[in-house]
Amino acid sequence: MNHISKLSEIYTDPHPYPVGIAFQDGQYIPVSEAKISVLDYGFLHSDATYDTVHVWDGAFFRLDDHIERFLSGVERLRMELPVNPEEIRQILHNCVALSGHRRAYVEMVCTRGTAANFSRDPREATNRFLAFAVPYGSVANDEQLRRGLHITIADITRIPPGSVDPKIKNYHWLDLIMGLYDAYDKGRETALLLDADGNISEGPGFNVFAVRDGSLSTPARGVLPGITRRTVIEICAAKGINAQEGNLSQERLRSSDEIFVTSTAGGIMPVTQIDGQPVGSGKIGPITDCLKCAYWGWHKDSRFIDIVSYPG
Amino acid sequence: MNHISKLSEIYTDPHPYPVGIAFQDGQYIPVSEAKISVLDYGFLHSDATYDTVHVWDGAFFRLDDHIERFLSGVERLRMELPVNPEEIRQILHNCVALSGHRRAYVEMVCTRGTAANFSRDPREATNRFLAFAVPYGSVANDEQLRRGLHITIADITRIPPGSVDPKIKNYHWLDLIMGLYDAYDKGRETALLLDADGNISEGPGFNVFAVRDGSLSTPARGVLPGITRRTVIEICAAKGINAQEGNLSQERLRSSDEIFVTSTAGGIMPVTQIDGQPVGSGKIGPITDCLKCAYWGWHKDSRFIDIVSYPG
Repeated sequence: MNHISKLSEIYTDPHPYPVGIAFQDGQYIPVSEAKISVLDYGFLHSDATYDTVHVWDGAFFRLDDHIERFLSGVERLRMELPVNPEEIRQILHNCVALSGHRRAYVEMVCTRGTAANFSRDPREATNRFLAFAVPYGSVANDEQLRRGLHITIADITRIPPGSVDPKIKNYHWLDLIMGLYDAYDKGRETALLLDADGNISEGPGFNVFAVRDGSLSTPARGVLPGITRRTVIEICAAKGINAQEGNLSQERLRSSDEIFVTSTAGGIMPVTQIDGQPVGSGKIGPITDCLKCAYWGWHKDSRFIDIVSYPG
Repeated sequence: MNHISKLSEIYTDPHPYPVGIAFQDGQYIPVSEAKISVLDYGFLHSDATYDTVHVWDGAFFRLDDHIERFLSGVERLRMELPVNPEEIRQILHNCVALSGHRRAYVEMVCTRGTAANFSRDPREATNRFLAFAVPYGSVANDEQLRRGLHITIADITRIPPGSVDPKIKNYHWLDLIMGLYDAYDKGRETALLLDADGNISEGPGFNVFAVRDGSLSTPARGVLPGITRRTVIEICAAKGINAQEGNLSQERLRSSDEIFVTSTAGGIMPVTQIDGQPVGSGKIGPITDCLKCAYWGWHKDSRFIDIVSYPG
């Protein structure tokens, strides 16, 4: 058998991708062409940090806050970006403008990269930046947004902060993915994981809020400090609604009047069942509704938005 | 500004890579061309499992065991491989044969992949298989192998088994990477992490063994069940050396006569300093030496090797 005859010069990718635009190494390319080396430690060691921001009706929401969190993660991982913050902002704008998407999910990523000699010493790697814009997506689909998510509490501990600092937004999701499968096995749609003390932490890509007697509470430790979570807390402050960050026990969650989850991918999303039991009345509650309305209202507020300039 | 004029059809990768061969989607390609989509959840959620096997002097070592562990991880992650075990074996042989490397580091990977609509439901993704062969690498370099590694015990908890099952070989390495930086900051070369009880777990890509009074002990829980670790235990059984799997306290480790770490990337590698203090005599010990000799001896044993057929 002549092995050599089988060697190709270039990889041809047979898989379909959503429509969008990516940036890599100074180049704007279709997102279907955006690839990272299988030797990049961003893949091989999930040694990467990222942030996602959305564009709604042609404008970024809280772009500064997302870039700031991203830069903080990069610094904590001891990486160096090949682009400065103003260049990042311009690149993200360009990706969206080139994509034409008026509603987009936009991601910026810094990976450890590679060293030419495949050294295992992360200090020898050249860190890389990439970004992409694809159509807006949501944790909850339209039907789930209308009637509320049906969730489970999975008996899985979210990777604790003593292992991986959740302030560094990271791709360590296997615990969350196993939580999703646990939910599917039980006939539920998504999952919340626990912290090491058995309290509620977060779910796959979202924070959670419980409402009881008109007050909100959300887990404080071992969770990503979500920008949507922060927005909810700020809206509450503006409206005089009490919102506390602290431990949230399973019992407290199960006895809530209302529950919702928050994510850049979907905003404020109601939860109306936990493990088959209705949350409160089993319908989307008034505080959730009110906060959701305010959240999307803030998307028209010049304090928080950056308008994309689309070509011609 | 005309954004569209800046769009490229194809990404041109300016980064250097080691020489090797990869397999992706039926194609054998130079490893420099082996790329995964930035939208593959193997990257975006580190939703992947893998295994690495080495080729030493033209023969795979314990290839069956590595493939078996890989298949187990794929099953636990609820993924489906597009190739069967015999095809995997042939692909790995072909990658090595095409690379020409007589000593190679060979990796097989299954990623969650993508769904065309960028769905967040992992059940909708098409799982992908890839493999590559690059030059053999070692956790310890030549000098470190000669005089022993100088390590630290980092005050970082290895991601616990209640979060991510360590039997699924995975890319969740940020805790290990932070351990490496902790070691570098202290002037050491690598690190061991702790488990949730403060006992020793493992390091970046390796298991650890402590030797005292002629007996070996190695952590049992929350660590990858390494194939080199298993080989050491089997060699001990064959030689009548006592080797126990169980809790290994920091105190027990620090008071060892000998310490070594084990990895497919480097085999059995001595440790002669912990946090600046000599281990035992401060020199590589006789049991470490004896096991290392036996380990490489087994690389000539037909029970464990698969000879690569290189092209004419």
